[in-house]
Amino acid sequence: MSRREQRPEELFEAARAGDRAALARSLSLIERGGAGARAIGRLSYPLGGAGYTVGLTGAPGAGKSTLTSATIGHLRARDVEVAVLAIDPSSPFTGGAILGDRVRMQDHATDPGVFIRSMATRGHLGGLSLATPEAVRLLDAVGRRWILVETVGVGQVEVEIAGKADTTVVVVNPGWGDSVQANKAGLMEIADVFVINKADRKGVEETRRDLEQMLDLGDLAHEAWRPPILPVVSTTGQGVSELWDVVEQHRAHIEASGELARRRAFRLREELREIVARRLEQRARELATGERWDQLQGQVLERALDPWGAADEMLRAVGA
Amino acid sequence: MSRREQRPEELFEAARAGDRAALARSLSLIERGGAGARAIGRLSYPLGGAGYTVGLTGAPGAGKSTLTSATIGHLRARDVEVAVLAIDPSSPFTGGAILGDRVRMQDHATDPGVFIRSMATRGHLGGLSLATPEAVRLLDAVGRRWILVETVGVGQVEVEIAGKADTTVVVVNPGWGDSVQANKAGLMEIADVFVINKADRKGVEETRRDLEQMLDLGDLAHEAWRPPILPVVSTTGQGVSELWDVVEQHRAHIEASGELARRRAFRLREELREIVARRLEQRARELATGERWDQLQGQVLERALDPWGAADEMLRAVGA
Repeated sequence: MSRREQRPEELFEAARAGDRAALARSLSLIERGGAGARAIGRLSYPLGGAGYTVGLTGAPGAGKSTLTSATIGHLRARDVEVAVLAIDPSSPFTGGAILGDRVRMQDHATDPGVFIRSMATRGHLGGLSLATPEAVRLLDAVGRRWILVETVGVGQVEVEIAGKADTTVVVVNPGWGDSVQANKAGLMEIADVFVINKADRKGVEETRRDLEQMLDLGDLAHEAWRPPILPVVSTTGQGVSELWDVVEQHRAHIEASGELARRRAFRLREELREIVARRLEQRARELATGERWDQLQGQVLERALDPWGAADEMLRAVGA
Repeated sequence: MSRREQRPEELFEAARAGDRAALARSLSLIERGGAGARAIGRLSYPLGGAGYTVGLTGAPGAGKSTLTSATIGHLRARDVEVAVLAIDPSSPFTGGAILGDRVRMQDHATDPGVFIRSMATRGHLGGLSLATPEAVRLLDAVGRRWILVETVGVGQVEVEIAGKADTTVVVVNPGWGDSVQANKAGLMEIADVFVINKADRKGVEETRRDLEQMLDLGDLAHEAWRPPILPVVSTTGQGVSELWDVVEQHRAHIEASGELARRRAFRLREELREIVARRLEQRARELATGERWDQLQGQVLERALDPWGAADEMLRAVGA
C-alpha cells in the first residue's frame, strides 16, 4: 500500500511509534476534517491528558515567532522535547492559509526533539477553533509533553484559540497601544503571563505600568494568580529562561489549586457545545437547499419577507 | 408614556420622522437582539433599498477614523447627508465594547446632516456580523442615502463585516507589512478601492508597487474593476475628494454591470444561512442542558467517549 493510501489507524500507530511524516499526515487529516479527522480523534482521545499546552499570542509584529524559537532553544538546551503548532488564520474567502514569518523556526527543523507545524483549515467543519484542540490532543496522544500553540493575528477567533491553552502567554512590545487597541480587553482576560518583547527598546517601564494598571482595574477570574510581566529580548535570548520558569510556576500553581482540571473541564464543555452547534450548522446548510428555500429566498429578495422571518419559517417547516 | 417604554413601532416612526434620539434607541434595540430587534427589522425591511453602503477597514492605527472624519467633511461641504456605523468588536469574554478613537469624529457631532453611531453587540444572537446588516437596513429605511461602515480591527469577523458593504475601501499605510500580515489575503479580496493613508510619509510608491503586485497575482472576482490605489493624507484632507470620486465611479460601475444587484442578493442569501445557523445554535444551547447531556459530558471528561462522538449521540437523541 502506498503512503498516500494509508488508513488513519495506520498513520496514527506510525505517529505513536515516532514516525514524524505520519504525524504530519495525521495533522493534515485533522485540518481537512471529515471521517479521517474523526478517526484520528477517536484514537487520540483515550490516550491523552499528560501533555501541557502553552499558548503564545499578541499583535502581528510583536515577535511571537522569534520568542517561540528562543523558547525552543532554551528547552532543547535542557533536553526537553517540544511540539509547536503555529495557527495561521485562513482567508474567509478562499480558505487559503497565510503563512507568517516562520523563517527563524527553521533553525530547529532538523532537531528530532522538536516538531513544528503550521495549522490552517482546509475544510474542517469547525474551523481552527475546533481543529486546534484536536491537533493538540493528537500531539498529546503521541507523547508530546509540551505543546506550544502560537497564534498569528489579533482577531476574536485567534484570541479565543490562544485562550484555550493551559498557560497563556501574551506578547506585547514597549509602547504597545494602537496595534492591540481592538483586542486589549480580550488579551488582558486570557493572559496568565505577559512578555514585553523587544525589551531592549525604549518604553519598557511605561508599558509595565500600563499593564499593571489594567491588571489593577480588571475583574480577573484568576485572582490567586496575578499575571507576572517579564521583559524579554527574544533575538538574544535575554529573559527567556525566566519566562519559562514563570510558565512552570504557573503550571505548578494551577495543578495544585485544581484550576487546571477546572479549566480543562470548562474547555471541554465549551468544545462540546461548539461541536453541537457546528453539526446543526451543517444541518442548516443541508436545509438551505430545495424548493421551499428558494421560494423563501425569492420572497426576501422581493422584500415581501424579512430575513429573520424567512429563517423562522424554514425552521418551523423542518420542526427544528 | 415615558420615552423608556416606547414601543419599537413608535420608535421606528419617530426615527423615520427625523428624531435622532429615536433612531439611536432603535439601534440599541438591534444591538440587544431579541423581540425589539425583530420588530425594527420587520418595519425596516420593506422600506429599504435606496441606501448605499461604503465599508472602511484596515489595520488598527491605519487612520480609519480620521479618514472617515475627512470623508464626512468632504460630503458635508457638498451638502450630502451621511450616516456612519463604527463597528467595535466586543471582547469574547465580557461582551464589553472597546471604543476606538472616535475623538475626531466629534467634530461632526452637532451637524444634523451627520449621524454617527458606534455599534457593539449587547446580546444579539448573531453578533456584529448579523446586527450590522440590520442596523444598515434601519438607516436605509429612515432615509439615509450614504452609510459608511467603519470596522475596527483586522480579525476574520471584522474583515467579513467590512466585505459586506456595497463598496469596500481598504486603508493601508506606507510600509504596511507586519501589521496586516495575518489578513492580507482577506483584505485583498474584499477591496474595491485601496487608500494609502498617511501618504505624506515615506514609502508610498513602494506600498503601491506591493499592492499592484498582489493585484496582479490575485485571482480576483471583480476582474472588470481593478481596485484603484489612492494616496490620501486624512489629517489635511489631501486626496479625499479623489477618493470619493472613485467610490462614486465604483458605484456607477457595479450598478450598470448588474454586479450590485448580484452582490446584494448573494449577501442576503449568506445572511439567511447565517440566521438559520444561529437559530440552530440557540437550539444547541437549549439541548446542552439536562440529564442526558450531563451524562455524555461525564463520559467525555472520563475519556470514555470523544467530544465529536458525544455530540453525535446528543444530536441523534433529538433527531437533529
